[in-house]
Amino acid sequence: MIGSEDVNGRILFQDDGHQFIWLGADEVEETGVVQTNQYLIISNGRGTLVDPGGIHLFSRVIALVSRYIELDNIDNIFFSHQDPDVSSGIALWLGVTKAKVYISELWLRFIPHFGIVDQNRIIGIEGLGGRLKLAGNSELKLIPSHFLHSAGSYTFYDPVSKALFSHDIGAAVFPSGNQYLFVENFDEHLKLMEGFHKRYMASGKAAKKWISKLSGLDIRIIAPQHGAIFKDETVGQFLSWFSELKCGVDIIDEIYG
Amino acid sequence: MIGSEDVNGRILFQDDGHQFIWLGADEVEETGVVQTNQYLIISNGRGTLVDPGGIHLFSRVIALVSRYIELDNIDNIFFSHQDPDVSSGIALWLGVTKAKVYISELWLRFIPHFGIVDQNRIIGIEGLGGRLKLAGNSELKLIPSHFLHSAGSYTFYDPVSKALFSHDIGAAVFPSGNQYLFVENFDEHLKLMEGFHKRYMASGKAAKKWISKLSGLDIRIIAPQHGAIFKDETVGQFLSWFSELKCGVDIIDEIYG
Repeated sequence: MIGSEDVNGRILFQDDGHQFIWLGADEVEETGVVQTNQYLIISNGRGTLVDPGGIHLFSRVIALVSRYIELDNIDNIFFSHQDPDVSSGIALWLGVTKAKVYISELWLRFIPHFGIVDQNRIIGIEGLGGRLKLAGNSELKLIPSHFLHSAGSYTFYDPVSKALFSHDIGAAVFPSGNQYLFVENFDEHLKLMEGFHKRYMASGKAAKKWISKLSGLDIRIIAPQHGAIFKDETVGQFLSWFSELKCGVDIIDEIYG
Repeated sequence: MIGSEDVNGRILFQDDGHQFIWLGADEVEETGVVQTNQYLIISNGRGTLVDPGGIHLFSRVIALVSRYIELDNIDNIFFSHQDPDVSSGIALWLGVTKAKVYISELWLRFIPHFGIVDQNRIIGIEGLGGRLKLAGNSELKLIPSHFLHSAGSYTFYDPVSKALFSHDIGAAVFPSGNQYLFVENFDEHLKLMEGFHKRYMASGKAAKKWISKLSGLDIRIIAPQHGAIFKDETVGQFLSWFSELKCGVDIIDEIYG
Protein backbone atom coordinates (compact mmCIF):
# COMPACT_ATOMS: atom_id res chain seq x y z
CA MET A 1 0.00 0.00 0.00
CA ILE A 2 0.95 3.63 -0.44
CA GLY A 3 2.03 4.95 2.94
CA SER A 4 3.09 8.28 4.42
CA GLU A 5 6.69 7.46 3.43
CA ASP A 6 5.61 7.69 -0.21
CA VAL A 7 4.42 11.28 -0.03
CA ASN A 8 7.97 12.37 -0.83
CA GLY A 9 8.43 10.04 -3.80
CA ARG A 10 10.73 7.10 -4.34
CA ILE A 11 13.98 6.71 -6.27
CA LEU A 12 13.33 3.75 -8.60
CA PHE A 13 16.86 3.64 -10.02
CA GLN A 14 20.11 5.32 -9.07
CA ASP A 15 23.73 5.12 -10.16
CA ASP A 16 26.54 7.70 -10.09
CA GLY A 17 25.13 10.12 -12.61
CA HIS A 18 21.55 8.98 -13.18
CA GLN A 19 18.30 8.79 -11.24
CA PHE A 20 14.76 7.72 -12.23
CA ILE A 21 12.35 9.04 -9.59
CA TRP A 22 8.65 8.45 -8.96
CA LEU A 23 7.26 11.73 -7.64
CA GLY A 24 4.99 10.48 -4.91
CA ALA A 25 1.32 10.26 -4.08
CA ASP A 26 -1.20 12.62 -2.61
CA GLU A 27 -1.60 12.19 1.13
CA VAL A 28 -5.35 12.40 0.70
CA GLU A 29 -7.05 10.71 -2.22
CA GLU A 30 -9.57 12.81 -4.05
CA THR A 31 -12.91 11.36 -5.05
CA GLY A 32 -13.71 11.53 -8.73
CA VAL A 33 -10.22 12.51 -9.90
CA VAL A 34 -8.05 9.96 -11.65
CA GLN A 35 -4.81 9.21 -9.79
CA THR A 36 -1.63 10.01 -11.72
CA ASN A 37 2.08 9.25 -11.47
CA GLN A 38 4.71 11.86 -12.28
CA TYR A 39 8.37 11.04 -12.85
CA LEU A 40 11.66 12.91 -12.85
CA ILE A 41 14.87 11.76 -14.54
CA ILE A 42 18.09 13.36 -13.40
CA SER A 43 21.07 12.79 -15.69
CA ASN A 44 24.39 14.40 -14.85
CA GLY A 45 22.67 16.99 -12.70
CA ARG A 46 20.08 18.05 -15.29
CA GLY A 47 16.37 17.20 -15.06
CA THR A 48 13.67 15.83 -17.33
CA LEU A 49 10.09 15.99 -16.03
CA VAL A 50 7.72 13.32 -17.33
CA ASP A 51 3.97 14.07 -17.66
CA PRO A 52 4.00 16.49 -14.71
CA GLY A 53 0.23 16.92 -14.83
CA GLY A 54 -2.35 19.66 -14.70
CA ILE A 55 -2.97 22.82 -12.75
CA HIS A 56 -4.66 20.67 -10.15
CA LEU A 57 -1.40 18.97 -9.06
CA PHE A 58 1.00 21.80 -9.69
CA SER A 59 1.73 22.87 -6.12
CA ARG A 60 2.31 19.30 -4.92
CA VAL A 61 4.49 18.29 -7.86
CA ILE A 62 6.60 21.42 -7.76
CA ALA A 63 7.30 20.90 -4.06
CA LEU A 64 8.34 17.29 -4.71
CA VAL A 65 10.54 18.12 -7.70
CA SER A 66 12.31 20.78 -5.65
CA ARG A 67 13.44 18.13 -3.13
CA TYR A 68 15.51 16.50 -5.86
CA ILE A 69 16.64 19.28 -8.21
CA GLU A 70 16.60 23.05 -8.62
CA LEU A 71 13.95 24.20 -11.07
CA ASP A 72 16.58 26.05 -13.12
CA ASN A 73 18.27 22.71 -13.79
CA ILE A 74 15.22 21.21 -15.52
CA ASP A 75 15.95 21.18 -19.26
CA ASN A 76 13.12 19.04 -20.60
CA ILE A 77 9.43 18.45 -19.98
CA PHE A 78 8.10 15.37 -21.76
CA PHE A 79 4.36 15.18 -22.52
CA SER A 80 3.24 11.76 -23.73
CA HIS A 81 0.01 13.20 -25.19
CA GLN A 82 -2.52 16.06 -24.99
CA ASP A 83 -4.85 14.97 -22.15
CA PRO A 84 -5.60 17.42 -19.32
CA ASP A 85 -4.12 15.15 -16.64
CA VAL A 86 -0.84 15.12 -18.59
CA SER A 87 -0.31 18.58 -19.98
CA SER A 88 -2.81 21.20 -18.78
CA GLY A 89 -0.22 22.70 -16.41
CA ILE A 90 2.01 23.70 -19.33
CA ALA A 91 1.76 27.46 -18.85
CA LEU A 92 2.68 27.13 -15.16
CA TRP A 93 5.64 24.83 -15.86
CA LEU A 94 6.96 27.09 -18.61
CA GLY A 95 6.71 29.93 -16.11
CA VAL A 96 8.78 28.36 -13.33
CA THR A 97 11.41 26.59 -15.45
CA LYS A 98 13.52 27.37 -18.52
CA ALA A 99 12.69 23.94 -19.92
CA LYS A 100 11.57 23.03 -23.41
CA VAL A 101 8.43 20.94 -23.81
CA TYR A 102 8.37 17.85 -26.05
CA ILE A 103 5.09 16.45 -27.40
CA SER A 104 3.91 14.77 -30.61
CA GLU A 105 3.68 17.29 -33.44
CA LEU A 106 0.02 16.28 -33.79
CA TRP A 107 -0.70 18.44 -30.75
CA LEU A 108 1.59 21.44 -31.35
CA ARG A 109 -1.27 23.54 -32.71
CA PHE A 110 -3.68 22.45 -29.94
CA ILE A 111 -1.47 23.09 -26.92
CA PRO A 112 -1.62 26.91 -27.16
CA HIS A 113 -5.35 26.60 -26.35
CA PHE A 114 -4.32 25.86 -22.73
CA GLY A 115 -3.36 29.50 -22.39
CA ILE A 116 -0.48 31.82 -23.10
CA VAL A 117 2.54 29.75 -23.98
CA ASP A 118 5.74 30.56 -25.84
CA GLN A 119 5.48 28.34 -28.91
CA ASN A 120 9.25 28.50 -29.44
CA ARG A 121 9.63 26.33 -26.34
CA ILE A 122 7.33 23.54 -27.61
CA ILE A 123 9.07 20.98 -29.80
CA GLY A 124 7.48 18.23 -31.90
CA ILE A 125 8.87 14.82 -30.94
CA GLU A 126 8.80 13.60 -34.56
CA GLY A 127 11.65 15.98 -35.40
CA LEU A 128 14.03 14.51 -32.81
CA GLY A 129 15.08 11.44 -34.79
CA GLY A 130 13.83 8.98 -32.18
CA ARG A 131 15.89 10.20 -29.24
CA LEU A 132 15.78 12.90 -26.60
CA LYS A 133 19.36 13.76 -25.65
CA LEU A 134 20.04 14.24 -21.96
CA ALA A 135 23.04 15.88 -20.29
CA GLY A 136 26.27 13.90 -20.74
CA ASN A 137 26.10 11.02 -23.18
CA SER A 138 22.71 9.80 -22.02
CA GLU A 139 19.52 9.75 -24.08
CA LEU A 140 15.94 8.53 -23.99
CA LYS A 141 14.78 6.29 -26.83
CA LEU A 142 11.40 7.64 -28.02
CA ILE A 143 8.91 4.97 -29.03
CA PRO A 144 5.63 5.89 -30.78
CA SER A 145 2.44 4.55 -29.22
CA HIS A 146 -0.12 6.13 -31.55
CA PHE A 147 -3.80 5.30 -30.93
CA LEU A 148 -2.98 3.94 -27.43
CA HIS A 149 -5.11 5.87 -26.69
CA SER A 150 -4.14 9.22 -28.21
CA ALA A 151 -3.75 9.48 -32.00
CA GLY A 152 -0.32 11.01 -31.38
CA SER A 153 1.46 9.65 -28.30
CA TYR A 154 4.94 8.56 -27.24
CA THR A 155 6.47 6.25 -24.68
CA PHE A 156 10.21 6.17 -24.01
CA TYR A 157 12.91 3.78 -22.86
CA ASP A 158 15.73 4.92 -20.62
CA PRO A 159 18.72 2.62 -21.37
CA VAL A 160 20.50 3.53 -18.11
CA SER A 161 17.70 2.66 -15.67
CA LYS A 162 16.21 0.15 -18.14
CA ALA A 163 12.83 1.72 -17.40
CA LEU A 164 10.06 2.08 -19.99
CA PHE A 165 7.72 5.02 -19.42
CA SER A 166 4.39 3.89 -20.86
CA HIS A 167 1.86 6.68 -20.00
CA ASP A 168 -1.70 5.22 -20.23
CA ILE A 169 -0.45 1.81 -21.38
CA GLY A 170 -0.38 -0.33 -18.27
CA ALA A 171 -2.59 2.09 -16.36
CA ALA A 172 -4.78 0.79 -13.54
CA VAL A 173 -7.71 2.35 -11.72
CA PHE A 174 -7.51 1.73 -7.97
CA PRO A 175 -10.51 1.31 -5.71
CA SER A 176 -10.62 4.06 -3.12
CA GLY A 177 -7.96 3.63 -0.42
CA ASN A 178 -6.23 0.73 -2.17
CA GLN A 179 -3.45 2.38 -4.13
CA TYR A 180 -0.09 0.55 -4.20
CA LEU A 181 3.23 1.40 -5.85
CA PHE A 182 4.42 -1.90 -7.36
CA VAL A 183 2.45 -4.67 -9.03
CA GLU A 184 2.90 -7.76 -6.85
CA ASN A 185 0.26 -10.15 -8.16
CA PHE A 186 -0.30 -9.72 -11.89
CA ASP A 187 -3.61 -11.59 -12.05
CA GLU A 188 -5.09 -9.51 -9.24
CA HIS A 189 -3.75 -6.29 -10.77
CA LEU A 190 -5.22 -7.20 -14.15
CA LYS A 191 -8.71 -6.72 -12.69
CA LEU A 192 -7.85 -3.02 -12.24
CA MET A 193 -6.46 -2.67 -15.78
CA GLU A 194 -8.62 -4.69 -18.11
CA GLY A 195 -11.71 -2.46 -18.40
CA PHE A 196 -9.61 0.64 -18.97
CA HIS A 197 -7.49 -0.92 -21.73
CA LYS A 198 -10.44 -2.45 -23.58
CA ARG A 199 -12.30 0.84 -23.64
CA TYR A 200 -9.59 3.48 -24.16
CA MET A 201 -7.04 1.72 -26.39
CA ALA A 202 -8.06 2.02 -30.07
CA SER A 203 -7.18 -1.48 -31.33
CA GLY A 204 -5.17 -4.64 -30.81
CA LYS A 205 -3.32 -3.91 -34.05
CA ALA A 206 -2.00 -0.68 -32.51
CA ALA A 207 -0.98 -2.60 -29.36
CA LYS A 208 0.95 -5.18 -31.40
CA LYS A 209 2.66 -2.45 -33.42
CA TRP A 210 3.88 -0.74 -30.23
CA ILE A 211 5.14 -4.01 -28.76
CA SER A 212 7.02 -4.76 -31.98
CA LYS A 213 8.97 -1.53 -31.40
CA LEU A 214 10.16 -2.79 -27.99
CA SER A 215 11.96 -5.73 -29.56
CA GLY A 216 15.52 -6.12 -28.28
CA LEU A 217 15.12 -3.79 -25.28
CA ASP A 218 16.08 -5.06 -21.85
CA ILE A 219 13.09 -3.70 -19.89
CA ARG A 220 13.35 -3.99 -16.10
CA ILE A 221 10.67 -1.46 -15.13
CA ILE A 222 7.42 -0.32 -16.78
CA ALA A 223 6.32 3.00 -15.31
CA PRO A 224 2.76 4.06 -16.31
CA GLN A 225 1.09 7.42 -15.76
CA HIS A 226 -1.75 5.86 -13.73
CA GLY A 227 -1.77 2.81 -11.50
CA ALA A 228 1.21 0.76 -10.31
CA ILE A 229 4.75 0.12 -11.55
CA PHE A 230 5.76 -3.20 -13.11
CA LYS A 231 9.13 -4.81 -12.39
CA ASP A 232 10.68 -8.29 -12.39
CA GLU A 233 8.40 -10.93 -13.93
CA THR A 234 5.34 -8.64 -14.09
CA VAL A 235 7.00 -6.71 -16.97
CA GLY A 236 6.81 -9.72 -19.28
CA GLN A 237 3.40 -10.71 -17.94
CA PHE A 238 1.99 -7.30 -18.84
CA LEU A 239 3.50 -7.17 -22.34
CA SER A 240 2.32 -10.70 -23.08
CA TRP A 241 -1.24 -9.86 -21.98
CA PHE A 242 -1.33 -6.55 -23.86
CA SER A 243 -0.04 -8.12 -27.09
CA GLU A 244 -3.14 -10.33 -27.25
CA LEU A 245 -5.74 -7.80 -26.11
CA LYS A 246 -8.86 -7.13 -28.16
CA CYS A 247 -9.88 -3.54 -27.54
CA GLY A 248 -11.40 -0.40 -29.02
CA VAL A 249 -12.54 -0.87 -32.61
CA ASP A 250 -11.98 -4.64 -32.28
CA ILE A 251 -15.02 -4.69 -29.99
CA ILE A 252 -16.79 -1.59 -31.30
CA ASP A 253 -20.28 -3.15 -31.34
CA GLU A 254 -19.91 -3.99 -27.65
CA ILE A 255 -18.70 -0.43 -26.89
CA TYR A 256 -21.53 1.25 -28.80
CA GLY A 257 -23.95 -1.01 -26.89
CA MET B 1 -13.58 34.10 -47.44
CA ILE B 2 -14.02 35.09 -43.82
CA GLY B 3 -14.50 38.85 -43.71
CA SER B 4 -14.89 41.53 -41.07
CA GLU B 5 -18.67 40.89 -41.11
CA ASP B 6 -17.96 37.42 -39.67
CA VAL B 7 -16.24 38.65 -36.54
CA ASN B 8 -19.65 38.81 -34.88
CA GLY B 9 -20.76 35.33 -35.90
CA ARG B 10 -23.52 34.16 -38.20
CA ILE B 11 -26.99 32.72 -37.52
CA LEU B 12 -27.03 29.45 -39.48
CA PHE B 13 -30.68 28.63 -38.70
CA GLN B 14 -33.53 30.57 -37.15
CA ASP B 15 -37.23 30.06 -36.56
CA ASP B 16 -39.59 31.43 -33.92
CA GLY B 17 -38.09 29.72 -30.91
CA HIS B 18 -34.80 28.26 -32.13
CA GLN B 19 -31.43 29.49 -33.36
CA PHE B 20 -28.22 27.69 -34.34
CA ILE B 21 -25.38 30.22 -34.33
CA TRP B 22 -21.75 30.05 -35.48
CA LEU B 23 -19.77 32.19 -33.07
CA GLY B 24 -17.43 33.91 -35.46
CA ALA B 25 -13.78 34.07 -36.31
CA ASP B 26 -10.78 35.89 -34.92
CA GLU B 27 -10.08 39.11 -36.72
CA VAL B 28 -6.41 38.24 -36.75
CA GLU B 29 -5.29 34.69 -37.40
CA GLU B 30 -2.67 33.36 -35.07
CA THR B 31 0.28 31.44 -36.39
CA GLY B 32 0.70 27.96 -34.99
CA VAL B 33 -2.70 27.75 -33.30
CA VAL B 34 -5.40 25.56 -34.80
CA GLN B 35 -8.51 27.51 -35.86
CA THR B 36 -11.72 26.46 -34.09
CA ASN B 37 -15.45 27.01 -34.50
CA GLN B 38 -17.72 27.57 -31.51
CA TYR B 39 -21.50 27.30 -31.70
CA LEU B 40 -24.46 28.45 -29.62
CA ILE B 41 -27.96 26.98 -29.74
CA ILE B 42 -30.77 29.06 -28.34
CA SER B 43 -34.02 27.19 -27.75
CA ASN B 44 -36.96 29.03 -26.21
CA GLY B 45 -34.64 31.66 -24.77
CA ARG B 46 -32.20 29.25 -23.11
CA GLY B 47 -28.69 28.60 -24.37
CA THR B 48 -26.46 25.61 -25.08
CA LEU B 49 -22.80 26.35 -25.79
CA VAL B 50 -20.98 23.84 -28.01
CA ASP B 51 -17.23 23.25 -27.60
CA PRO B 52 -16.59 26.82 -26.41
CA GLY B 53 -12.82 26.26 -26.35
CA GLY B 54 -9.86 26.95 -24.13
CA ILE B 55 -8.58 29.78 -21.97
CA HIS B 56 -6.96 31.17 -25.07
CA LEU B 57 -10.30 32.09 -26.71
CA PHE B 58 -12.33 32.85 -23.61
CA SER B 59 -12.51 36.64 -23.87
CA ARG B 60 -13.49 36.60 -27.56
CA VAL B 61 -16.09 33.85 -27.19
CA ILE B 62 -17.69 35.35 -24.12
CA ALA B 63 -18.07 38.70 -25.89
CA LEU B 64 -19.69 37.00 -28.89
CA VAL B 65 -22.04 34.87 -26.79
CA SER B 66 -23.17 37.96 -24.91
CA ARG B 67 -24.40 39.53 -28.16
CA TYR B 68 -26.98 36.75 -28.45
CA ILE B 69 -27.92 35.71 -24.90
CA GLU B 70 -27.36 36.63 -21.28
CA LEU B 71 -24.83 34.36 -19.59
CA ASP B 72 -27.35 33.51 -16.86
CA ASN B 73 -29.58 31.97 -19.53
CA ILE B 74 -26.99 29.40 -20.59
CA ASP B 75 -28.09 26.05 -19.19
CA ASN B 76 -25.78 23.62 -20.98
CA ILE B 77 -22.17 23.43 -22.12
CA PHE B 78 -21.52 20.52 -24.46
CA PHE B 79 -17.95 19.19 -24.74
CA SER B 80 -17.48 16.71 -27.57
CA HIS B 81 -14.24 15.38 -26.04
CA GLN B 82 -11.31 16.18 -23.75
CA ASP B 83 -8.88 18.06 -26.01
CA PRO B 84 -7.50 21.43 -24.86
CA ASP B 85 -9.00 23.34 -27.77
CA VAL B 86 -12.45 22.02 -26.76
CA SER B 87 -12.58 22.03 -23.00
CA SER B 88 -9.61 23.66 -21.26
CA GLY B 89 -11.68 26.76 -20.47
CA ILE B 90 -14.03 24.74 -18.26
CA ALA B 91 -13.18 26.46 -14.97
CA LEU B 92 -13.74 29.90 -16.53
CA TRP B 93 -17.07 28.90 -18.10
CA LEU B 94 -18.32 27.35 -14.87
CA GLY B 95 -17.38 30.60 -13.18
CA VAL B 96 -19.37 32.94 -15.43
CA THR B 97 -22.44 30.76 -16.03
CA LYS B 98 -24.69 28.51 -13.98
CA ALA B 99 -24.57 25.88 -16.73
CA LYS B 100 -23.94 22.18 -16.41
CA VAL B 101 -21.21 20.60 -18.52
CA TYR B 102 -21.85 17.45 -20.58
CA ILE B 103 -18.98 15.23 -21.70
CA SER B 104 -18.40 11.49 -22.21
CA GLU B 105 -18.09 9.72 -18.88
CA LEU B 106 -14.68 8.50 -20.05
CA TRP B 107 -13.31 11.95 -19.23
CA LEU B 108 -15.19 12.77 -16.02
CA ARG B 109 -12.20 11.81 -13.86
CA PHE B 110 -9.72 13.63 -16.13
CA ILE B 111 -11.49 16.98 -16.40
CA PRO B 112 -10.77 18.07 -12.79
CA HIS B 113 -7.07 18.15 -13.77
CA PHE B 114 -7.83 21.39 -15.65
CA GLY B 115 -8.20 23.12 -12.30
CA ILE B 116 -10.74 23.71 -9.61
CA VAL B 117 -14.13 22.61 -10.90
CA ASP B 118 -17.35 21.65 -9.15
CA GLN B 119 -17.75 18.01 -10.11
CA ASN B 120 -21.48 18.15 -9.40
CA ARG B 121 -21.85 20.34 -12.49
CA ILE B 122 -20.14 17.83 -14.84
CA ILE B 123 -22.46 15.17 -16.23
CA GLY B 124 -21.53 12.02 -18.17
CA ILE B 125 -23.30 11.93 -21.54
CA GLU B 126 -23.80 8.16 -21.36
CA GLY B 127 -26.33 8.63 -18.57
CA LEU B 128 -28.62 10.88 -20.62
CA GLY B 129 -30.32 8.14 -22.64
CA GLY B 130 -29.20 9.51 -26.00
CA ARG B 131 -30.71 12.97 -25.74
CA LEU B 132 -29.95 16.33 -24.20
CA LYS B 133 -33.24 18.04 -23.38
CA LEU B 134 -33.45 21.73 -24.21
CA ALA B 135 -35.99 24.29 -23.00
CA GLY B 136 -39.48 23.69 -24.33
CA ASN B 137 -39.99 20.39 -26.11
CA SER B 138 -36.74 20.53 -28.03
CA GLU B 139 -33.81 18.12 -27.64
CA LEU B 140 -30.47 17.25 -29.17
CA LYS B 141 -29.95 13.66 -30.34
CA LEU B 142 -26.56 12.53 -28.98
CA ILE B 143 -24.61 10.29 -31.35
CA PRO B 144 -21.43 8.51 -30.20
CA SER B 145 -18.33 9.02 -32.35
CA HIS B 146 -15.84 7.02 -30.30
CA PHE B 147 -12.26 6.77 -31.67
CA LEU B 148 -12.92 9.64 -34.12
CA HIS B 149 -10.46 10.65 -32.80
CA SER B 150 -11.07 10.56 -29.05
CA ALA B 151 -11.81 7.21 -27.39
CA GLY B 152 -14.89 8.82 -25.83
CA SER B 153 -16.53 11.47 -28.04
CA TYR B 154 -19.99 12.59 -29.09
CA THR B 155 -21.57 14.40 -32.01
CA PHE B 156 -25.20 15.56 -31.94
CA TYR B 157 -28.09 16.19 -34.31
CA ASP B 158 -30.48 19.08 -33.78
CA PRO B 159 -33.83 18.07 -35.31
CA VAL B 160 -35.10 21.64 -35.48
CA SER B 161 -32.24 23.17 -37.45
CA LYS B 162 -31.40 19.78 -39.03
CA ALA B 163 -27.74 20.51 -38.19
CA LEU B 164 -25.24 17.83 -37.21
CA PHE B 165 -22.44 19.03 -34.94
CA SER B 166 -19.49 16.81 -35.81
CA HIS B 167 -16.50 18.19 -33.79
CA ASP B 168 -13.24 16.95 -35.41
CA ILE B 169 -15.10 14.89 -38.02
CA GLY B 170 -15.15 17.03 -41.15
CA ALA B 171 -12.43 19.31 -39.82
CA ALA B 172 -10.18 21.13 -42.26
CA VAL B 173 -6.88 22.90 -41.78
CA PHE B 174 -6.79 26.18 -43.71
CA PRO B 175 -3.66 27.68 -45.24
CA SER B 176 -2.88 31.02 -43.61
CA GLY B 177 -5.27 33.77 -44.72
CA ASN B 178 -7.59 31.41 -46.60
CA GLN B 179 -10.29 30.58 -44.08
CA TYR B 180 -13.85 30.39 -45.43
CA LEU B 181 -17.16 29.64 -43.69
CA PHE B 182 -18.99 27.28 -46.08
CA VAL B 183 -17.63 24.49 -48.23
CA GLU B 184 -18.32 25.51 -51.84
CA ASN B 185 -16.21 23.05 -53.82
CA PHE B 186 -15.97 19.67 -52.14
CA ASP B 187 -13.02 18.39 -54.18
CA GLU B 188 -10.96 21.48 -53.40
CA HIS B 189 -11.96 21.39 -49.73
CA LEU B 190 -10.98 17.73 -49.50
CA LYS B 191 -7.34 18.72 -49.94
CA LEU B 192 -7.58 20.55 -46.58
CA MET B 193 -9.27 17.61 -44.83
CA GLU B 194 -7.69 14.41 -46.08
CA GLY B 195 -4.37 14.45 -44.22
CA PHE B 196 -6.02 15.31 -40.91
CA HIS B 197 -8.62 12.54 -41.14
CA LYS B 198 -6.14 9.86 -42.20
CA ARG B 199 -3.83 10.66 -39.32
CA TYR B 200 -6.16 11.50 -36.40
CA MET B 201 -9.16 9.20 -36.97
CA ALA B 202 -8.50 5.77 -35.46
CA SER B 203 -10.00 3.51 -38.14
CA GLY B 204 -12.39 3.18 -41.04
CA LYS B 205 -14.43 0.73 -39.00
CA ALA B 206 -15.11 3.47 -36.43
CA ALA B 207 -16.07 5.87 -39.24
CA LYS B 208 -18.54 3.37 -40.72
CA LYS B 209 -20.04 2.74 -37.28
CA TRP B 210 -20.65 6.45 -36.73
CA ILE B 211 -22.23 6.87 -40.15
CA SER B 212 -24.53 3.90 -39.49
CA LYS B 213 -25.90 5.85 -36.51
CA LEU B 214 -26.91 8.75 -38.80
CA SER B 215 -29.28 6.55 -40.77
CA GLY B 216 -32.71 8.14 -41.22
CA LEU B 217 -31.65 11.66 -40.20
CA ASP B 218 -32.42 14.54 -42.54
CA ILE B 219 -29.09 16.39 -42.29
CA ARG B 220 -28.99 19.82 -43.92
CA ILE B 221 -25.87 21.19 -42.20
CA ILE B 222 -22.69 19.58 -40.86
CA ALA B 223 -20.95 21.92 -38.44
CA PRO B 224 -17.41 20.82 -37.47
CA GLN B 225 -15.19 22.25 -34.73
CA HIS B 226 -12.42 23.17 -37.19
CA GLY B 227 -12.63 24.17 -40.84
CA ALA B 228 -15.74 25.00 -42.87
CA ILE B 229 -19.44 24.17 -42.63
CA PHE B 230 -21.10 21.72 -45.04
CA LYS B 231 -24.58 22.33 -46.45
CA ASP B 232 -26.62 21.37 -49.52
CA GLU B 233 -24.92 18.67 -51.61
CA THR B 234 -21.61 18.86 -49.76
CA VAL B 235 -23.24 17.12 -46.75
CA GLY B 236 -23.74 13.91 -48.71
CA GLN B 237 -20.39 14.27 -50.48
CA PHE B 238 -18.60 14.43 -47.14
CA LEU B 239 -20.42 11.47 -45.60
CA SER B 240 -19.86 9.37 -48.71
CA TRP B 241 -16.13 10.14 -48.71
CA PHE B 242 -15.74 9.53 -44.95
CA SER B 243 -17.58 6.20 -45.11
CA GLU B 244 -14.88 4.82 -47.41
CA LEU B 245 -11.82 6.35 -45.75
CA LYS B 246 -8.87 4.23 -44.70
CA CYS B 247 -7.27 5.90 -41.70
CA GLY B 248 -5.45 5.39 -38.41
CA VAL B 249 -4.78 1.74 -37.66
CA ASP B 250 -5.85 0.81 -41.22
CA ILE B 251 -2.63 2.46 -42.42
CA ILE B 252 -0.56 2.06 -39.27
CA ASP B 253 2.62 0.97 -41.04
CA GLU B 254 2.52 4.13 -43.11
CA ILE B 255 1.92 6.27 -39.99
CA TYR B 256 4.76 4.68 -38.02
CA GLY B 257 7.00 5.29 -41.10
